[in-house]
Order: sequence, then C-alpha cells, then structure tokens
Amino acid sequence: MSVGAIYRYEEIAAFITGLVDAGTLRPGAKVPSLRRISKQRRTSLLTALQAYRLLEDRGVLEARPQSGFYVAKRSTDSLGAPAISNPPRTPTAVAVSATVLKLLEYASDPRLVPLGCAIPSAELLATGRLDRFLARAARTKGVALNVYTAPKGDSRLRREIALRALRWGQALSPEDIAITCGCTEALILALKAVSRAGDTIAIESPTYFGLLHALEVLSLKALELPTDPATGVDVQALERTLKDNSVAACLFSSSFNNPLGCTMPDDRKLALLQLLAKHDVPLIEDDIYGDIYFGPERPKPFSALDRQGNTIYCSSFSKTVAPGYRIGWIATGRHMQKVLEHKFATTLCGPALPQAALADFLSSGGYDNHLRRIRRVFSGNIDQMIRTIANTFPKGTKVNRPAGGFVLWVELPRPIDSRAVFDEALNNGVCFAPGDVFSTSDRYANCLRLSCGHNWDRRIEDGLNIIGTIANAAQARGHEAVDGRKPLRTRNVGAQSGVFRGR
Amino acid sequence: MSVGAIYRYEEIAAFITGLVDAGTLRPGAKVPSLRRISKQRRTSLLTALQAYRLLEDRGVLEARPQSGFYVAKRSTDSLGAPAISNPPRTPTAVAVSATVLKLLEYASDPRLVPLGCAIPSAELLATGRLDRFLARAARTKGVALNVYTAPKGDSRLRREIALRALRWGQALSPEDIAITCGCTEALILALKAVSRAGDTIAIESPTYFGLLHALEVLSLKALELPTDPATGVDVQALERTLKDNSVAACLFSSSFNNPLGCTMPDDRKLALLQLLAKHDVPLIEDDIYGDIYFGPERPKPFSALDRQGNTIYCSSFSKTVAPGYRIGWIATGRHMQKVLEHKFATTLCGPALPQAALADFLSSGGYDNHLRRIRRVFSGNIDQMIRTIANTFPKGTKVNRPAGGFVLWVELPRPIDSRAVFDEALNNGVCFAPGDVFSTSDRYANCLRLSCGHNWDRRIEDGLNIIGTIANAAQARGHEAVDGRKPLRTRNVGAQSGVFRGR
Repeated sequence: MSVGAIYRYEEIAAFITGLVDAGTLRPGAKVPSLRRISKQRRTSLLTALQAYRLLEDRGVLEARPQSGFYVAKRSTDSLGAPAISNPPRTPTAVAVSATVLKLLEYASDPRLVPLGCAIPSAELLATGRLDRFLARAARTKGVALNVYTAPKGDSRLRREIALRALRWGQALSPEDIAITCGCTEALILALKAVSRAGDTIAIESPTYFGLLHALEVLSLKALELPTDPATGVDVQALERTLKDNSVAACLFSSSFNNPLGCTMPDDRKLALLQLLAKHDVPLIEDDIYGDIYFGPERPKPFSALDRQGNTIYCSSFSKTVAPGYRIGWIATGRHMQKVLEHKFATTLCGPALPQAALADFLSSGGYDNHLRRIRRVFSGNIDQMIRTIANTFPKGTKVNRPAGGFVLWVELPRPIDSRAVFDEALNNGVCFAPGDVFSTSDRYANCLRLSCGHNWDRRIEDGLNIIGTIANAAQARGHEAVDGRKPLRTRNVGAQSGVFRGR
Repeated sequence: MSVGAIYRYEEIAAFITGLVDAGTLRPGAKVPSLRRISKQRRTSLLTALQAYRLLEDRGVLEARPQSGFYVAKRSTDSLGAPAISNPPRTPTAVAVSATVLKLLEYASDPRLVPLGCAIPSAELLATGRLDRFLARAARTKGVALNVYTAPKGDSRLRREIALRALRWGQALSPEDIAITCGCTEALILALKAVSRAGDTIAIESPTYFGLLHALEVLSLKALELPTDPATGVDVQALERTLKDNSVAACLFSSSFNNPLGCTMPDDRKLALLQLLAKHDVPLIEDDIYGDIYFGPERPKPFSALDRQGNTIYCSSFSKTVAPGYRIGWIATGRHMQKVLEHKFATTLCGPALPQAALADFLSSGGYDNHLRRIRRVFSGNIDQMIRTIANTFPKGTKVNRPAGGFVLWVELPRPIDSRAVFDEALNNGVCFAPGDVFSTSDRYANCLRLSCGHNWDRRIEDGLNIIGTIANAAQARGHEAVDGRKPLRTRNVGAQSGVFRGR
C-alpha cells in the first residue's frame, strides 16, 4: 500500500467524521454511497471502501447489508465540551509529590489497563529503525563517544533539531539549543534560569502534574489561570493577574496542552507575547506535543512568533518516538549561560550514544514517516475513545476534542469524585489519572485524564467501559445521597470500593 | 600472553617500585639480577625481564649494557608530599560556576594535551564489550525498553550493583539503590535530601570543583576542613567544627579523594562515623574512585562500616568504564522517598537501554577484567608522571602519592601562581586544572591537579615538560621580583603570557 493511498482514505474518513461531528449527518442517517463519495472526492472505489471500513471500525458508521453505510446510532454529540476553568486567584504553594509518585507507580504497572500514563505504548512506537541506529552507533562510535558530551550536547543532534524548527518558522542555531534529560529537565532548567525559591509562576489550569511537581521541588508558587479547553489561557485574565501579582514567569504549553488539549490561536499567542513583553515577564513554553497535530499543519510555538526573545522553549522526543531514550532539549534564548551552569552542576551531560543515534535517525528522514503514522493512530484512538465514552459514561459527562496529542480530559457530572472512581477502577485492574493531581486546588475532583497512547483494542475498550460503569454507579449513589442518604466518603488510595467524596 | 603472566610481571614491577619509593633501593643502586629476582619471586626469567623493561619504560630503572639494571639516577624522592591543608574556618558561599565551566570547556578541547579533565581517555576505556552489549540490547530489547524505567531505574542493574557492594561488606538490596545521571545527580539528590538553601555542608579541602559547583547551585555554604593528603579529613578538626557550627551534612570521598588522593584508614572512618552519629549529622560519601585501588584490596566505603544507617552512598561508572553512558547510583538509606520525589521532578528517570547494557556487562564479568587493566595503567601513569615532575618541575615542588584513582595534586613552590601557569600552558596547547577551582578560598593558588587518565605517551610527557618549564620560568621571575622588581599580575583566562600573581 502506497503512502499516498493511506492519506487519501484518511482524508475521506476525516471528511465524513467532520460531517458527523458537525451534526450535518445525524445518527441513523445514510452516508453518501461508495460510488458517490469516490466520484466527489476523486478517488477509487477501493479507497472509499477503506475509508468507510475504518469509520466502521471506529464506530462512526454502521454497515447495513444490501443497503450501505449509516451513521452509527449512538454518536458523540451527546457529549458536551468542558467549560473554561475558573481556578483560585492567589498563588499557592504546591504539595503534590506523594500523590504524583503513587500515581506513576500505578501508571507503570503492566497489569493495569494503561489509561493512566501519558506516554505512547512501546509497541506503538516500535521504532526498530531508531534502535538500529543506536546499535550501529554503539558498534562504530562506542569508543569515540565514551566521553562526556559537549556541555550543550551532541552537536549533530542540535543541528537536526534546529533544522526541524525552521519548518515552522522558529529560527534557531544549534548553539541556541542544549540537550536535556527529557522535557522534565528542560523545564527545571528554564525555571531555575528565571526564578528563585518563593517566586510565583503562572500556569494553565488544569495543568500537567509533573509541572506542579517541578514547582514544588523548586519551592515555587503556582498561580493557576482560567484556561479554555479549546483556546488555552484567558489572556484578559492573565492581564489582570499581572497587575495584581508579582509573577516571575509564565509556563504554558505551546499546543495540545496536557491534560486539556487546548491550543491558543496565533493571534492570541501574539497578544499574550505582547502582554508579557510589556510586563517584562518571561515565557517558558512546553511544546512536547507540538509534533502530534491532526490538522493540516503544525501549530506555531510561541517562540516562532516571539520577536522580543522573551521565550524559553522546551520539548523532547519522549511523546513521539523514544520515552526510553530520555532526550529533550531547551532553546534558552539569552539564558544559556545560567542554564548550562545549572545543568552542569546537576546532571553534567546526557549519554552520548543515544544522542548520536537520534541524530542519525532524524537525518535519515525516519522521524517524519514515524510521525505521520502515530498521528493517524492517536487521532483514531481519540475518536474511538470519545465514542466509547459517549456510550458508557454517565449522562452529563463532558469531554474535550483535542486537535493533537493523545490525552482526553473528561468532566464527570458532579458530585462524582474521580478519585473514588480511580480507587475502584484500580481494584478492577484499570488505571487512569484522577483530576486532583492536575491542580493545587480541589476543583477538578470530578475530572479525569485518559491516555490514548495505546493502540485501540478490546482491553482498552473494556477498561474504558469499566470506568464508565463505576462512574454510573457513583452517579446513581450520588442521586440516592442527594435524596437524603448519607454520602459515602472515601479517600483511601488503598482503595476500598466507595464512590464519592462529599463536596 | 596469558592474563596470569600480565599480573605476574606487574607484581614484580610493583615490588621493585615499592623498594625504590621506600628508599631501600637508592638512585644509582643496582637492582637484583634477573636470575635472582626470578628465583626469589618464583617466576620465569622472561617474566622478570618483562617487569624490568616495564620499569625501564617508566623511568624507574636504567639498563646498562653488559651490567644489568640500576635505579634511575633522578628518582622522585626529591619530591616532598603536600602538608595537611589549613582552610578558613567559617562557612563560605560558593561562586565557582563561571570558572568551572570555562575550565571544562578547555578540558574537553581535543587540541589541548589532556591533563585537565579527570576522566579516562576513551581509547583507554575502549570497552568494545560494553558497547556490544548496548548494540545487542538495542536490537533485541529496543521495543520493550522504549519506556520510562521504574523510578529507581533498571532492576537488574541495581541487583548487579548490590552484588558487587557485598564484596566489600556493604549490605545493600536492589531496593536501596536508585540509578542516577552519573555521580553528579546522585550527589545533588543526596544534598537535596538532607539540606535546604542556606545550610552549611562540611567538605574536604581541597575538594572536587564539581562538588563546590553543586553547593553553589543549591545555595549551600561550604565549610572546608583540614585534610591530610594521606589520611583525609582531620577528625579532631571536624569535632571542633561541629561544636561551633550548625552543619547540615558532611560530604566526603570514600577513597582516593579528588584532587588529593587521600583515603581515610578504617579506624578513622569509624571514629568519624561515631562522631557524626553523636551530632546527628548525616554523611554523604562519594565513592566514585573506589574501584580504582592499586593496593591488594578495595578500601571500604563509610557505609560498609556504618552501623547507624547515617550514610548516603554515591558513585558511578564514569571514572572506570563509561563516562559516555552517564550512569551513577545512590544508596539512599532512609531518604529514598525524598530522593525519588526530587529525581522524578528534575529528570524523571534515565535512559533504559544503556542501563540494561551495563547490567549485562556487569553480569558477564567483563567489568572485573576491565578494572584490573585500568588499575595497572593508571598506576603506571601516576608513577611515570611523578618521575617526570621530579625531573622537570621547580625545586620545592610537592606531589601526593595516591594509592588509587588517577589524579595528582601538585604544590608548586610559592609564589608561583598556577592560574598564570595555566594561562601560559593553554597558549602552548596544554591543559590542566589550576588550584583555585578546588576551594572557596584563594589558598591553593600555587597548586594544580593533573589527570593521569590518558595512556602515557610522548604527547603527555611533552605536555608535562611544558608545564614544568613554564613553572620554572615563573619561579625565576618570582625570585627576580622578590629581589626588588615589580611582579607581573595577570588573571586573564584569555591568556596573555605572564606568570604570577602577587599574593
């Protein structure tokens, strides 16, 4: 099968999905015949059939013998989208580490259905090609590279990264970049460069718990900002915040934020950059999901739009190709000296051979093919996941529809407590990330994050159904409680069953 | 040549060197004939000849035609050993990062004679075997290991490390160990676990500049202790210090400290442990040179002697086999939770495949063979280096005689300023580490550290001679200055020539 054909049938599938999601094609409606759609979209009958079969697999369409394809009865339009968040307006000390570590232990437990950890499954990444480059580098360059790398890391890798960034208008030289131990170290180095203990960092809400954890160990305060699940941080709210608070830096996602999936449109990004420049507040951006876009082009990171040089850019290869290689990078802007000093004192440098192998892989073009493949898989997983949620989760559940990345943010109807659902799901062999780890406040207690990083299969589907069933039971019990009975209160991670927490 | 034969002739060489260093065999003295020594040491004539040829290569012996072997005329007994250090007695804020980073840039410049950087040369380590394990792991385990490792790191590697530690009486379970990004991260994690910004850490003086750098980025104060070049920190001085100061932790080398080469005898280690337990001050030990001992057995680290569980143990494979792999470890004692929390927030985990490869390498027994080889080379290098220093450096130069590791600490006669010698040596293509980076004070301005981590060859010998020549010129000019002329003062790392700094 040629690469072209893959895109063609994906295109048609996306076209039909768009019509379904927009309500143009309602549940039960007949979709254009294979003959008509192939004519309209100027493609072969076979390609059209591939597209419809894919949509059937994803639960969007149903085939009726002798009749054709119809929009599946239970579609996802019953699912609303979460509203813009409304976090507390004061800087808060962070204390999430114990909860986060515990969660990560569960998330890496292979016996549990893996909806908890936001890394793609190893099978899905299965980049034998990258590993072969590592094997070759070990055989041919092992001696030469058994040294500490240059302080900034492998120069060829930095050049490959700079070359890629050019594609979306980010003008970097290899000398602007330092290789890090994943995006985690990049973010720590960025924070260390622009803040000191006790300072306040403005962040999205909800936000990635690893980031909260980083703020905690650096003794920084978090100031969470109202964040729209579609368009990101509310710039007006940020403006008010900057008037009332001393903020050392902002730390936002460039695109497809974890867990909301939001991406700020370019004009808002520009307005935000202007605002920050006016207040002389540096921006740290986390672009770790940027390469996983489902639309026609990659969203621009802030630094590609920033004319003031006020942005520190952080990313890594952990979400797209090699979580096991632990290679991230930071484009420091004017903070290189400080970043290198800190990096040098804390980790010195990263291993040389994996960096060399990744440089070879990037220059071979293998990464682009790989990205095209996983984007398709993630997008399909997300569709499938949303449909299953629509079928199984309690009425009133809301879910975001990210245009990239591979996590879903689910709002269960209150007063369902996702931590209690989590405890019970664990007892049933299923892991996800409960909402309380994504904020310093209690306000996402009814939310949860699902990872769509594993190939859709029966196990994932069953896992999702289990969560839905537990949430439905919780809702039913909640209604009983509202009808006058005493609600069950449990917070034991030890995980007795027990399904919500009074609010 | 069998492995056995290698050890045999090395043994004889060490025996003769010991007699020379002890003064039993004086310069010019005839050494036992090949026939006699082979009979005495129960070995073949050929082996005895190999030993004498080796000593000839090292400049210990001279062959006189028709006569036999004699102790070389200019031996090293003209070189005194440095005295115990006498650092300032107050905690001091650290500010070495700019100097240290600059130094490391020079130290990794392949155009310079590499006497600056304390890592073994890649050629010397040339562990094709480890690299082959990595290549195999990449081919066979790439998919399975393309994940984040467990929080503590690869469990097989931790088991291998625990097994090795048993040999010198350190009882560890794999669960007591966390894998880190080199010893650097291990030390940072240890410091974070037992101290907070502003605290005072007691250290050896002089000490490894990377450690000073770590204290700096953690905003910790350094309290340097009098340290004997043979036996390490003065325990009485530490006792007085603990009475007068609030010390959050001590951070000492287990063996062969960098740069002094000192190793504390077991009874002093025990006394020190007792003292620290009494004052409830935790000990962080850095055992990175422990495997590189020249004597009959490996010195015990503190934690093997510690019955109170008051020690955090840090080490790595960077000095012995794989600087390019960046794998260290920490045995945290009761601080595991805190260490993991911090590690997780700052680097998450290390790359999986290099850890798996190292585990394979260790379990194959390859590491022990490798260690035997490099111990021999380092010991030979150090002998050779000391002899060359005796021949070339100014009269009054002192040098330590470490029983392990691969660095030499050289005290030039005052008022020679090693920073000025450094600047001029750089201009002449030679790098070393000037004394001022090993302390928060100015007191090692006449000292320097030489790395013996590269195979002894003409280039290294020439480099050492250049340093000696520059130092001699500096001494001559110093005498002129003392005779009434104005001394030259230069501190430009940019490195005009100019040879000392007024003190």
